[in-house]
Amino acid sequence: MPEIRQNIATKEWVIIATERAKRPEDFTAEQRTPTHLRPPHVATCPFCPGNEAMTPPPSLVRIGADGSWQQRIVPNKFGALSPAAPAVRLEEGVARMTGGYGFHDVLIESPLHNTTTALLAPEEVAATLSALRDRARELARDERIAQIIPFKNHGESAGTSLEHPHCQMVSLPIVPSHIRQRLEEAMRYFDEHGTCVFCDMARLESEAAIRVVCEDEHFVAFIPYAAFSPFHTWILPRRHRSLFTQASDEELASLGNILKTTLLKLYRGLGDPHYNYMIRMAPLAYEKVHWSHWYLSIVPKVTRAAGFELGSGMYINTALPEESAAFLRAVTT
Amino acid sequence: MPEIRQNIATKEWVIIATERAKRPEDFTAEQRTPTHLRPPHVATCPFCPGNEAMTPPPSLVRIGADGSWQQRIVPNKFGALSPAAPAVRLEEGVARMTGGYGFHDVLIESPLHNTTTALLAPEEVAATLSALRDRARELARDERIAQIIPFKNHGESAGTSLEHPHCQMVSLPIVPSHIRQRLEEAMRYFDEHGTCVFCDMARLESEAAIRVVCEDEHFVAFIPYAAFSPFHTWILPRRHRSLFTQASDEELASLGNILKTTLLKLYRGLGDPHYNYMIRMAPLAYEKVHWSHWYLSIVPKVTRAAGFELGSGMYINTALPEESAAFLRAVTT
Repeated sequence: MPEIRQNIATKEWVIIATERAKRPEDFTAEQRTPTHLRPPHVATCPFCPGNEAMTPPPSLVRIGADGSWQQRIVPNKFGALSPAAPAVRLEEGVARMTGGYGFHDVLIESPLHNTTTALLAPEEVAATLSALRDRARELARDERIAQIIPFKNHGESAGTSLEHPHCQMVSLPIVPSHIRQRLEEAMRYFDEHGTCVFCDMARLESEAAIRVVCEDEHFVAFIPYAAFSPFHTWILPRRHRSLFTQASDEELASLGNILKTTLLKLYRGLGDPHYNYMIRMAPLAYEKVHWSHWYLSIVPKVTRAAGFELGSGMYINTALPEESAAFLRAVTT
Repeated sequence: MPEIRQNIATKEWVIIATERAKRPEDFTAEQRTPTHLRPPHVATCPFCPGNEAMTPPPSLVRIGADGSWQQRIVPNKFGALSPAAPAVRLEEGVARMTGGYGFHDVLIESPLHNTTTALLAPEEVAATLSALRDRARELARDERIAQIIPFKNHGESAGTSLEHPHCQMVSLPIVPSHIRQRLEEAMRYFDEHGTCVFCDMARLESEAAIRVVCEDEHFVAFIPYAAFSPFHTWILPRRHRSLFTQASDEELASLGNILKTTLLKLYRGLGDPHYNYMIRMAPLAYEKVHWSHWYLSIVPKVTRAAGFELGSGMYINTALPEESAAFLRAVTT
């Protein structure tokens, strides 16, 4: 019989449709061309070494022991927002508009064209995360920026056409209503219990262990009780902080390993599925609130949202989160 | 320069990315096999006449002048919810669960296999809408049902694999948080202005006329000022009612024509794009509220949601709503 589950942090409901449930190994994800069949360097790729002039000038470059760059952050050549947009504001009839001021960064994760985050060393993944954090800290000093959204699109069905490993970060002058609503739910939980719902989840999921994918002293990677799709995974820091910009070097070293391990389990278990990951955090002004908590969310593209999802904001998950987690735990890395 | 626009009803922001804007005619939608190249009857199609035994028994059948059925409503054979699910409730640790009680109906729109809503007569589209309304009225008498979501998935990228024209309706025992949040926004507007924001939008959009696709005395079809994707269209009734179940026969006759006309403009202008439509309404208990207002929303699948959209709940629209509307207005029907 189907169940309707609710996430205690977001208060979002999901239908766990056991009548149409598949075994975890039956999910056919859209898969990428095997990494070893792709070239390590592509002359026309704007992210490959030697082609640095094909991107706008970088805002951050990390140099390796051999003197060559390991990570670069550059503006997206087709950015959704622009630091040159005026700070206008319009209110007239149905129109509510603000100028599209903001930043749209691209982080190139490796000089190698034919690799992917799952195959990088944990230290390389940590270097990506710390470059993102440092760039976010820099942008947070701009008082016009209200909200930062770091994310990765991996594979075409996840929204990218460039195969060279990269992630992105959009810095907005407004707070999206979706984020404001989640904050309000977390505030209500704090009001009721006096604790951060995400701190409680990290502890309860780690104790119950049935939905855990992997964990260490700093992070718990688990499939949420009300996961909205098969293999939807949260990586929650155990330490309470509202913002990703507050993550310590020690935490990011740990996250590099946990993220790499989780992505490698997906890579091996499902055959390099297309996926998105997002680093979720509070608006910058909420650095000190007790009820908000940053985390990383991974969504492999194994299902498609349609009319029901658009109309209700709910999802139908055809996999039991406990079974998906057991499947991923068993994949060796 | 990019703009960030907000919908006054939902308070959702969208980035209008003019830097990457395309002309309306440049949107390449995923297109279906041309209707005339498909057979009018398929022996293995569960929705074709003669195959009625392949579906569970119908809850509603509309018979035409010739004595054969014109529309049928049957339970989805792989329904996401079940009327046999128990009314259990669980609260324990991170778990919040309710039994998956509910209904998942399929409405077969025509006995003809190789047609589509855009090509049906306005009266046939009106008959589909009135069958949906009548079934929804019946389900609304069940006190365990809190929310009804009618929708259509047209084409594979919109989430359907069956090509015989059909739409669906999910009846839920809970109110999705997404719908509750939109209600709260509309209530705040009413609190500020003493009017229904959707009534105001219908009037203002009809007066401004720059985003109107088509309209009549009962409905305004327009691309919202903060449309979240190219050709995202709202069809708003001018008369204030919270629920689709409150629509009159006269309104549905009118909507049959407006919906057919809008879908035919998309069919001819973009080449039968995959799309979803949803009928949005308040929870059933909100029948009498002054600030909620049912409407129909159409989302053609011309773009893909990725990490930014998942992480922010916002969309990036690369088309100007005013240009998309002018393009559709010019398509003859």
